[in-house]
Amino acid sequence: MKTSDIDQQIESAISAVMKVNGLKDIYFVACGGSLALMMPNKYLIDRESKTLSSEVYNSAEFVQRAPARLGSDSLVVVSSMGGTTPETVEAAEFARKHGALTVGLTTDPSSPMGQAVDYCIEYELSPSQANDKAAACVFLKLLFRLLAEKEGNEKYQQVATGVSKITSVVDSVVASHADRIRDFGQQYKRESVIYTMASGSNYGPAYSFAICILMEMQWIHSNAIHAGEYFHGPFEITDFDTPIITLLGLDATRPQEERALAFSRKFSDRNIVLDAKEFDLSSLPEVSHEYVTQIIFGYLLRAYANRLAEDKGHPLTVRRYMWKMDY
Amino acid sequence: MKTSDIDQQIESAISAVMKVNGLKDIYFVACGGSLALMMPNKYLIDRESKTLSSEVYNSAEFVQRAPARLGSDSLVVVSSMGGTTPETVEAAEFARKHGALTVGLTTDPSSPMGQAVDYCIEYELSPSQANDKAAACVFLKLLFRLLAEKEGNEKYQQVATGVSKITSVVDSVVASHADRIRDFGQQYKRESVIYTMASGSNYGPAYSFAICILMEMQWIHSNAIHAGEYFHGPFEITDFDTPIITLLGLDATRPQEERALAFSRKFSDRNIVLDAKEFDLSSLPEVSHEYVTQIIFGYLLRAYANRLAEDKGHPLTVRRYMWKMDY
Repeated sequence: MKTSDIDQQIESAISAVMKVNGLKDIYFVACGGSLALMMPNKYLIDRESKTLSSEVYNSAEFVQRAPARLGSDSLVVVSSMGGTTPETVEAAEFARKHGALTVGLTTDPSSPMGQAVDYCIEYELSPSQANDKAAACVFLKLLFRLLAEKEGNEKYQQVATGVSKITSVVDSVVASHADRIRDFGQQYKRESVIYTMASGSNYGPAYSFAICILMEMQWIHSNAIHAGEYFHGPFEITDFDTPIITLLGLDATRPQEERALAFSRKFSDRNIVLDAKEFDLSSLPEVSHEYVTQIIFGYLLRAYANRLAEDKGHPLTVRRYMWKMDY
Repeated sequence: MKTSDIDQQIESAISAVMKVNGLKDIYFVACGGSLALMMPNKYLIDRESKTLSSEVYNSAEFVQRAPARLGSDSLVVVSSMGGTTPETVEAAEFARKHGALTVGLTTDPSSPMGQAVDYCIEYELSPSQANDKAAACVFLKLLFRLLAEKEGNEKYQQVATGVSKITSVVDSVVASHADRIRDFGQQYKRESVIYTMASGSNYGPAYSFAICILMEMQWIHSNAIHAGEYFHGPFEITDFDTPIITLLGLDATRPQEERALAFSRKFSDRNIVLDAKEFDLSSLPEVSHEYVTQIIFGYLLRAYANRLAEDKGHPLTVRRYMWKMDY
């Protein structure tokens, strides 16, 4: 599969979306790591769209909640890595039954989810090696193309250029963190609790790292603390020995992340900080920075995870329940 | 303040909302425990409204994200207990500046937030003794009155009747849990991590208990796990000694909560289950059960919190940072 093939699949989906009469709402629906990828999508629509509302739901929540507005003026965007997540297949079927247009992202178009949606867009999974066929990149292109067609939004070309250079940018960012990644593995391998913290579009990678990497793959207690919420409860848990990974992004909500970090730095000696201001993004159009930073965080966090897993002797592939039994 | 005074404040707000031309979106905006109260509001609008979209934002996130759709066809509902939360005052001012109609709930109408909104509705704070002047009750009445006027929704009277009987229902529910509440304090007072789990409208009280009670007031690590997300990461943290408080509600998403509990029961010996099917709701109109259950959970969880605090010798009023310094 080539990037140009994906771009073509995006165009087919956009043509169909443009034929939806009076399109009002986009529902972003998925589970777990795929749901985390939807969070920056809502950030993007909130920031850029004057005509579309958007919502993010876990697939089972979506089907059982059954929003009364869902109908022929809705676009439902689903995603599942292998396309076999039963709740997400059901969500796609549920959405179609209610007259919504469905677009799905998966690595396997022949999967049940790939078959259940009106338009399927393929992506490539490569969590430790960035490339522009990753789901997060495909989502950016899909949504900015939609906004270009629907509202004359002019950012598509710059964002697409940014996305096209993701491999070398991520490689250099990860390389610049090499020492910190090594220290992280050594210093945190015996922790039983590690928090993540972020806001805006970066809440997606923070959530993914908390529930998919730390809890699922490393059996470490975690919680993705929203940086704006930190001061309204969670900050009381901060102590000299409380590990918190804080993302400082480049989107409109960075002031929340900075404020939360300034506080946790005063009272915890265990702060891990990933600051996008240190990233060399000089090769990317400035307009794209707000939107690609969360993608870079995803890869950078994966490099931290790889090292933690190695130092713990607990490979990221190990599970005790997932895929091993019915649930 | 009498319930009838609150009802009158609701009517004033509704009159103004009905004058909003082409009302499209409701933004529910608050911080911490007040934000938790907004989550069931979105559930309600999702379930009942065919014309309105709704979103829930932390106040700082709302202002910094600055949704492009926000405007004169928006209703922004804010809430702050004392009305002094700076981010929420700012959110109200931000919303008004963008032409939105603002309605605010607070215990102090003379507070900065009370003064910043177009329409202020008073509520009473009494976390350990249920009454129909509580914020959660006022929200139900406000939103069902709005839907009655705007869409001819017919549930207001039954929900209001349900709300009016909340005191005796909660008293009997809490009394029926007396033994379990005592055991909880004894058995969990030395835990360093306690999770909560729920979905739908009950995610609100689960979130509030995790971040405001456990993290803020008891310095216990926590995370409100969404029951539908549990199987896509968090469930791998489940072990024989992992404490999880699961809410089994009566709303449309109960199947998610039941599925999550069925799994965690297999692998953890530390399940605390609050099952609304055991509540005696026979005095409440059946239509109201879906919506008042989350309110009952709020009070019942507070009774658990009171006992835990007592057995830990760590009063719920103790803070190390909140209100004690600038942040």
